[in-house]
Amino acid sequence: MRARDHGIVIGTGTPGPYNAITDVPGVRVGHTTLISGDGPRVIGTGPIRSGVTVILPHGDSAYDHPVYAGLHWLNGNGEITGQAYIHELGMLGSPIALTNTASVGVVRDALTKIEISGLRPGTQAWSLPVVAECWDGSLSDIDGQHVTADHVLAAYARAASGPVQEGGVGGGTGMICHGFKGGIGTASRVVDGYTVGVLVQANHGVRERLTVNGVNVGRHLPESAAPHEGAGSIIGVVATDAPLLPHQCRRLAQRAGLGVARTGGAGENSSGDGFICFSTANRNLPPEALDIVPPKTYQVTALADTYLDPLFHAVIEATEEAIVNVLTVAETMTGADGLTIYGLDGKELSQLLG
Amino acid sequence: MRARDHGIVIGTGTPGPYNAITDVPGVRVGHTTLISGDGPRVIGTGPIRSGVTVILPHGDSAYDHPVYAGLHWLNGNGEITGQAYIHELGMLGSPIALTNTASVGVVRDALTKIEISGLRPGTQAWSLPVVAECWDGSLSDIDGQHVTADHVLAAYARAASGPVQEGGVGGGTGMICHGFKGGIGTASRVVDGYTVGVLVQANHGVRERLTVNGVNVGRHLPESAAPHEGAGSIIGVVATDAPLLPHQCRRLAQRAGLGVARTGGAGENSSGDGFICFSTANRNLPPEALDIVPPKTYQVTALADTYLDPLFHAVIEATEEAIVNVLTVAETMTGADGLTIYGLDGKELSQLLG
Amino acid sequence: MRARDHGIVIGTGTPGPYNAITDVPGVRVGHTTLISGDGPRVIGTGPIRSGVTVILPHGDSAYDHPVYAGLHWLNGNGEITGQAYIHELGMLGSPIALTNTASVGVVRDALTKIEISGLRPGTQAWSLPVVAECWDGSLSDIDGQHVTADHVLAAYARAASGPVQEGGVGGGTGMICHGFKGGIGTASRVVDGYTVGVLVQANHGVRERLTVNGVNVGRHLPESAAPHEGAGSIIGVVATDAPLLPHQCRRLAQRAGLGVARTGGAGENSSGDGFICFSTANRNLPPEALDIVPPKTYQVTALADTYLDPLFHAVIEATEEAIVNVLTVAETMTGADGLTIYGLDGKELSQLLG
Amino acid sequence: MRARDHGIVIGTGTPGPYNAITDVPGVRVGHTTLISGDGPRVIGTGPIRSGVTVILPHGDSAYDHPVYAGLHWLNGNGEITGQAYIHELGMLGSPIALTNTASVGVVRDALTKIEISGLRPGTQAWSLPVVAECWDGSLSDIDGQHVTADHVLAAYARAASGPVQEGGVGGGTGMICHGFKGGIGTASRVVDGYTVGVLVQANHGVRERLTVNGVNVGRHLPESAAPHEGAGSIIGVVATDAPLLPHQCRRLAQRAGLGVARTGGAGENSSGDGFICFSTANRNLPPEALDIVPPKTYQVTALADTYLDPLFHAVIEATEEAIVNVLTVAETMTGADGLTIYGLDGKELSQLLG
Repeated sequence: MRARDHGIVIGTGTPGPYNAITDVPGVRVGHTTLISGDGPRVIGTGPIRSGVTVILPHGDSAYDHPVYAGLHWLNGNGEITGQAYIHELGMLGSPIALTNTASVGVVRDALTKIEISGLRPGTQAWSLPVVAECWDGSLSDIDGQHVTADHVLAAYARAASGPVQEGGVGGGTGMICHGFKGGIGTASRVVDGYTVGVLVQANHGVRERLTVNGVNVGRHLPESAAPHEGAGSIIGVVATDAPLLPHQCRRLAQRAGLGVARTGGAGENSSGDGFICFSTANRNLPPEALDIVPPKTYQVTALADTYLDPLFHAVIEATEEAIVNVLTVAETMTGADGLTIYGLDGKELSQLLG
Repeated sequence: MRARDHGIVIGTGTPGPYNAITDVPGVRVGHTTLISGDGPRVIGTGPIRSGVTVILPHGDSAYDHPVYAGLHWLNGNGEITGQAYIHELGMLGSPIALTNTASVGVVRDALTKIEISGLRPGTQAWSLPVVAECWDGSLSDIDGQHVTADHVLAAYARAASGPVQEGGVGGGTGMICHGFKGGIGTASRVVDGYTVGVLVQANHGVRERLTVNGVNVGRHLPESAAPHEGAGSIIGVVATDAPLLPHQCRRLAQRAGLGVARTGGAGENSSGDGFICFSTANRNLPPEALDIVPPKTYQVTALADTYLDPLFHAVIEATEEAIVNVLTVAETMTGADGLTIYGLDGKELSQLLG
Repeated sequence: MRARDHGIVIGTGTPGPYNAITDVPGVRVGHTTLISGDGPRVIGTGPIRSGVTVILPHGDSAYDHPVYAGLHWLNGNGEITGQAYIHELGMLGSPIALTNTASVGVVRDALTKIEISGLRPGTQAWSLPVVAECWDGSLSDIDGQHVTADHVLAAYARAASGPVQEGGVGGGTGMICHGFKGGIGTASRVVDGYTVGVLVQANHGVRERLTVNGVNVGRHLPESAAPHEGAGSIIGVVATDAPLLPHQCRRLAQRAGLGVARTGGAGENSSGDGFICFSTANRNLPPEALDIVPPKTYQVTALADTYLDPLFHAVIEATEEAIVNVLTVAETMTGADGLTIYGLDGKELSQLLG
Repeated sequence: MRARDHGIVIGTGTPGPYNAITDVPGVRVGHTTLISGDGPRVIGTGPIRSGVTVILPHGDSAYDHPVYAGLHWLNGNGEITGQAYIHELGMLGSPIALTNTASVGVVRDALTKIEISGLRPGTQAWSLPVVAECWDGSLSDIDGQHVTADHVLAAYARAASGPVQEGGVGGGTGMICHGFKGGIGTASRVVDGYTVGVLVQANHGVRERLTVNGVNVGRHLPESAAPHEGAGSIIGVVATDAPLLPHQCRRLAQRAGLGVARTGGAGENSSGDGFICFSTANRNLPPEALDIVPPKTYQVTALADTYLDPLFHAVIEATEEAIVNVLTVAETMTGADGLTIYGLDGKELSQLLG
């Protein structure tokens, strides 16, 4: 059950039909969830509570059809590969994958492999894939590096429009959020004829600062035994069909951090709180491919900055709601060394909020 | 009456004795407040509702004794002169002045004049003063550019430790915040033996998003007639005696924006939401002065990053409280063209918060 | 006599008709040159060797018709006001003025005054003018702050297309470059049907590193008595009619620093080496003005990144040539305290280059 | 034979004993070179002309003993993993590895594996390894992703002080530079009692812009058949024992790009020109490790900024010489599809320089 199923409404905006990042037309999400083993941690063996989530910016190949994008770090104690390209060229030309810290590399190279497999004849790949991470080492044998290229290919193949599975799935399988079971969450807002969708992999925050709709619920909920509280991270992906240029995407990305702040996050020192925003409105951008010579110029549509505020507010609200969705959906999980992280009881949360 | 005088307590931290930026030992604040004229706006004549606020980082000359500093923009639709120097050299070697948008220049050159007047014989000035602004053109004849160098000198001369005057004073005289009368506010927190102080010049936000302690009070308060709502800005100055290096100051600066977010700000498009943080702990930094040759190396103390979180939380809380102090202290003001901006009734606010 | 008049040709590209920033259609440049007094320096009296240069991005008001822009610091020990706006909004909505360090403020406020004087009825200004500086305190009584608003208005009024006066004029009047008389220089390149123009205010560099066309001429030229060698700055303005988005402008701006490097600059510690690039191709951008509501979206033309390299090369070459033009045009000047800074003898330079 | 063996001396500075990055005490370098197969390219089979180079910042574990570091992109069309951490925390807590674009991931995860294998009992890894890349897909079957974790472990194990193997070795095996055979190069300078060392993996530049000691030699040398000229990248690693804080490291990193510019690079659009600088002077920095609680504060030594210029000049010169060393050392190589890339003839180069 998601936040709204418990009667918890965040903000005043209107969600899209799925209240998910997939409300932005064309955006697709796929998960591979890895759950196996129990008991004491044996590096290389398990238990495993991990996975990978793949987000495709639209219905076509991201390599052949890049979109404008921007990025912001609230706290850069984390990894997003491909970020220099997004900053320099202002484009996303890759799927976005979310996974655990120790497996960023294998996921990245697997995305390259996918690009290679789809190359037009006579061309070579130029691939700087985007992979972000949170650390799931409390529940999972993260140092065993169990994610494989095949797991990435499977998540990529499963990527679909429509409802998005949330909670302890995909890259979010072993995550912990504000001392409760964390993971994947999503939400969306429709404003001014545009849709803004946010998907988070939430592994951040301390319990005593957890705030929902302005109520510090964290202090009223039973104490957790979550180790390394606040040492996690949150990755946010913001998608929109509003026609944003790269620097406008970057501005929206920073607003996701404000949603984190409003639910009690602070970009803690050990946290990698990074946000990517892309806009699907301009789809005729030239791909970065060797041996392909694009036309010299192309036409794009840009949103006048005056109209950005509703989008800013939408990003903040949708990020807040995505985090609360993580918490209400994610279920209690027992992982490595028998550690149990409790899911937040949505009914209890709802009562606390009055 | 400040927030706490109304029983409104923000967060869980402990304020310093003055609950002000001046709780950081040595920090001094001085205001020049300009209020004159009534009735229709005549450019160059008035009415005037403006001024300048000067913040000195410690008890000595900031030119001769720079401190480590960093800076962050939540939304860069504003001005902070001297910012390239802070980014490149990691130091603040100037007082910080706050004023209105159209008078940034005269204030900046006046700070240079002050430096020149204090030069050691045989040396020449190298001065990149730090002046930030918000737009007070709804209440004041901003385009008349009424602030003078003498106003700056007077504020500089008045700069003092101890309690800080808040509300519609100094650079904050004509400001509007979340549709209510805005201006200057401050607060502090003592954590781990260090003090964190924040001073804001608040001219930002829309009424319907105003949030205090998680309660969206803005929607419950009478509607305002404030023009250009959300088109303003907020400047935040964060001071601490924790021994931070420049990049750590920059990290604290970004957290001030999270305090803005928690009270309902969003870094709106027309807003210049910029934050400067300086650390007074290391006072032996070499000044940037021509004809002075410093020793080759110097010793500094640095805080291990692991200990940053309480400071992050303190910045967020103190920024929130500084904003609420602005609102509860600032009184109703009538300015240019008879526009009246109402002060927020602290008693009413207190009741809304239950 | 400019570099090419001495037979000194930089690089392989083709200059525009004036070999100046004004080859970019619409770009206008105007100077006010202040030369008065001789003998010992008396602060507030003189001698004065200073001024202001104004660059207008096109034939209309920059306030009403912004253009895309970007910015880069090779070394940020200097000032460019308005830079946060350029970074955040990606636009230049102001003239660009160049002056001395101690007079940045008065020039900035004067640009605001110009905007105010041209406001459409019923609107108010939102002005974050762009003013950059170098330190001319060796030759001029910089601390006397002799530049006035009227000087700015005069330079603005004089701004014209066509040939640009170079050397010790305008903002460059009292500047020193690589130990020789410095000042204003400009050059341009025509590539792929686009024009790239660069104008520099050059006050940087040490003599022994001066390099022209790869020849370290500095070591072969007589020693100078220039005080504070290398303590100066260089400001570069890059204009183009190629259709660049904001982040592409930022990329061109960084290349100006490579031209500085190729002539022997290193972004020395005391130097403020900052570069602004704007593109005049898209002229339908919504202005940042209160009370004006632009259409929601607008169409722009963007250059495919693949075509950037010739523009990068053009920026580098034109910056190199603009610096050499400064040196060959600027004439020997005697200033405060009888200090004489020698102009580089273009004929001698030409001979050194063989 | 290196540049100096051909009588080619770059600049005026004094190299260290090995004229290599390893002149900075403690810095170690190790290569794994992969050369196998000939003839037509078969993806997944070969021919292979690739490898990995590992740089260790000092004689101990980089995980346990981080050093201050900073980073700059001249052109961000490339990858450096771990960059957000360097920006946020100002430290390098990992070896630096250089490899090809398609194998960044496997190398990154292998560095994590190395960290895990060395963990102190009872602690868990927090690893954001630093891996940078250039594209060697003209000479090598890059899309076959032939680099393995074992190759990384071998390079790591081989890392040693003393002379550094240059040219077509390690990560530089299949690289092309200014149309000639590229690869690894290094150089150093001793200034003011400090050592500055630079190591590059050079795969950038077009032939006609190649400039050595100011002479455009590229135009005088026989034409190449190098495909995708200028589409490569250059990664530079700058090491020093001067006591630099993180923001000072960042400033040195930007100067490496000026050395690239002086040899004819321009940060071309398809190029990933990124530079990392670290300082080994302060070795008591707290490691980022879970379960380890460092002392609250620590003492560091900082260099007064006034003394940076000789270091800036040293970085520029050493980068230039490292690039020329790449070119003079690297030998002609035939790779995939029989493509032959010619080594630059050092004797011929020497003659061109007179």
